[in-house]
Amino acid sequence: MDKKTENFLGIDVGGTHVKIGLVNTKGDIIEFAKEETGSLRKHPQGFNMGFVETVGKYLKKYPEVKHVGIGLPGLVSKDRTTTLEIPAIGELNGFNLKGALTDKFPDIIFHLENDASAAAVGELHFGTGDNSDSYLFITLGTGIGSALIIDGEVFKGVRGNAMEMGHMLSRGNSRLEPLIGRNGILNIARKMLQSFSGDAGELANAELGMHVLVAAANNGNKVALKTFAEVGEILGEAIVSTVRILDVNEIYFGGGISAALPHIMPAMKKTIHQYLSAYYLSDLKLERASLENDAGTLGAAALCFMD
Amino acid sequence: MDKKTENFLGIDVGGTHVKIGLVNTKGDIIEFAKEETGSLRKHPQGFNMGFVETVGKYLKKYPEVKHVGIGLPGLVSKDRTTTLEIPAIGELNGFNLKGALTDKFPDIIFHLENDASAAAVGELHFGTGDNSDSYLFITLGTGIGSALIIDGEVFKGVRGNAMEMGHMLSRGNSRLEPLIGRNGILNIARKMLQSFSGDAGELANAELGMHVLVAAANNGNKVALKTFAEVGEILGEAIVSTVRILDVNEIYFGGGISAALPHIMPAMKKTIHQYLSAYYLSDLKLERASLENDAGTLGAAALCFMD
Repeated sequence: MDKKTENFLGIDVGGTHVKIGLVNTKGDIIEFAKEETGSLRKHPQGFNMGFVETVGKYLKKYPEVKHVGIGLPGLVSKDRTTTLEIPAIGELNGFNLKGALTDKFPDIIFHLENDASAAAVGELHFGTGDNSDSYLFITLGTGIGSALIIDGEVFKGVRGNAMEMGHMLSRGNSRLEPLIGRNGILNIARKMLQSFSGDAGELANAELGMHVLVAAANNGNKVALKTFAEVGEILGEAIVSTVRILDVNEIYFGGGISAALPHIMPAMKKTIHQYLSAYYLSDLKLERASLENDAGTLGAAALCFMD
Repeated sequence: MDKKTENFLGIDVGGTHVKIGLVNTKGDIIEFAKEETGSLRKHPQGFNMGFVETVGKYLKKYPEVKHVGIGLPGLVSKDRTTTLEIPAIGELNGFNLKGALTDKFPDIIFHLENDASAAAVGELHFGTGDNSDSYLFITLGTGIGSALIIDGEVFKGVRGNAMEMGHMLSRGNSRLEPLIGRNGILNIARKMLQSFSGDAGELANAELGMHVLVAAANNGNKVALKTFAEVGEILGEAIVSTVRILDVNEIYFGGGISAALPHIMPAMKKTIHQYLSAYYLSDLKLERASLENDAGTLGAAALCFMD
């Protein structure tokens, strides 16, 4: 095996789509396809066998592939063989996915990982930023995902599934994800709009969505900016607690909503500086991840670099 | 070196006392002494040299000792040579303590560690409980300390000082330690007393201290029980967030206030069960640590087992 020249298959499994990319070791996506998760469910033996068969289809299409990385939206066993709790695809709960794949394709090496950790690994191998090999990675999107890379390895915690920051308790004991995941942010904006007495500008009559909100913030809209400031405060609080537990000082933000990072950052930084001591603030780095739309596919492919 | 038969020196450094124990490999404290931190400060070259000299005094007294473990109340460098931020003994900030000790006593191996981590290591080697080699350890006392032992090693995080749970943000963005450290608990009790309309029993006229409060709870005093229930809720919330980050399911509680654990536990468990999913709750173990008063000395001595 020569990982310097071969091509990997990166598979990003989601509740709506399964995305498949043929990726070279420089991180170029050579070919890309997606399958509907629902159509894989229609396999006579259900999603799991539908997925195994789909993997087979692409392995046949790309016979040079020897390593397949798979990012999964949920909890996996510490030995990364079995999917434990995958809320979006319940059929995978407690399924030895690596076993099933290896039985069927014994010449291929499969690398399974949680999708947030996969995105963090993608940044490690394919990112264009100046990250070191130890950092916290936070995905801001429909949900809030997170991962810790420590000395170039995914931090698994004691039992295998560390770094579920989206489920930390925040204000009034809500979980972080409902508070500042996509819907949470839109809820904050709606409340801000209701209580805002000035001119809400383009948000006054708009159908509120994330693109509209980010565009409004880019235009200096006050309600949009106040919304992202609130998000920054809440996210900053969670980061303070996480830094105290992990002692990490390099933090990257990925996911679609990281596009709003310039608007989130000022309040987030202020909160972090308010609650962390000098030791933690020295050399603290808070930056947007370098991989954007393709982070899922590239992250899955980058798993092939890991042992 | 035969770690099976030799005696270790365990030194527990605190703001008031430096405690020194000669400890055998079974965890018996053979001899014990304590020095006042203030008197070590009176050394012509200040605390640091006073400490080095004091270590020398005991090494001379116990010439068989080859390993010395030192527990320190603050942040230490990742390579465990240098004390970084020791709030109670500012002289130690940025001091290469291991270097100074090794220069003076080249035949001795010194093991430095944060004191909460040392207590957790003590439980690992000298505890009488049925702990595995991976667990979260929380010290309830004047402050709130914590440590993670993972595969028999202290988890250091990225830069060396992980596990400062006492500084996590909790309700209204207070840090956990002021909320439920010793003084925080007494504050909760005072507020409960003020707003309590029934008979506060033995707490009505008592000078409120931790012993009085624990004794009252043991007698079924309602205000005391409500106080510890509140502590349990706050502690439970912090544990929920910590478990989501570390995926740990074995948790021990040490420190003086762990004596109140039976009163803290019910509300703590309720909170934890409210916010964690089935995966985290299966086999979740919440228990009092087996080492009590001597945990500091034994923890420091147990560091000598580590590499």
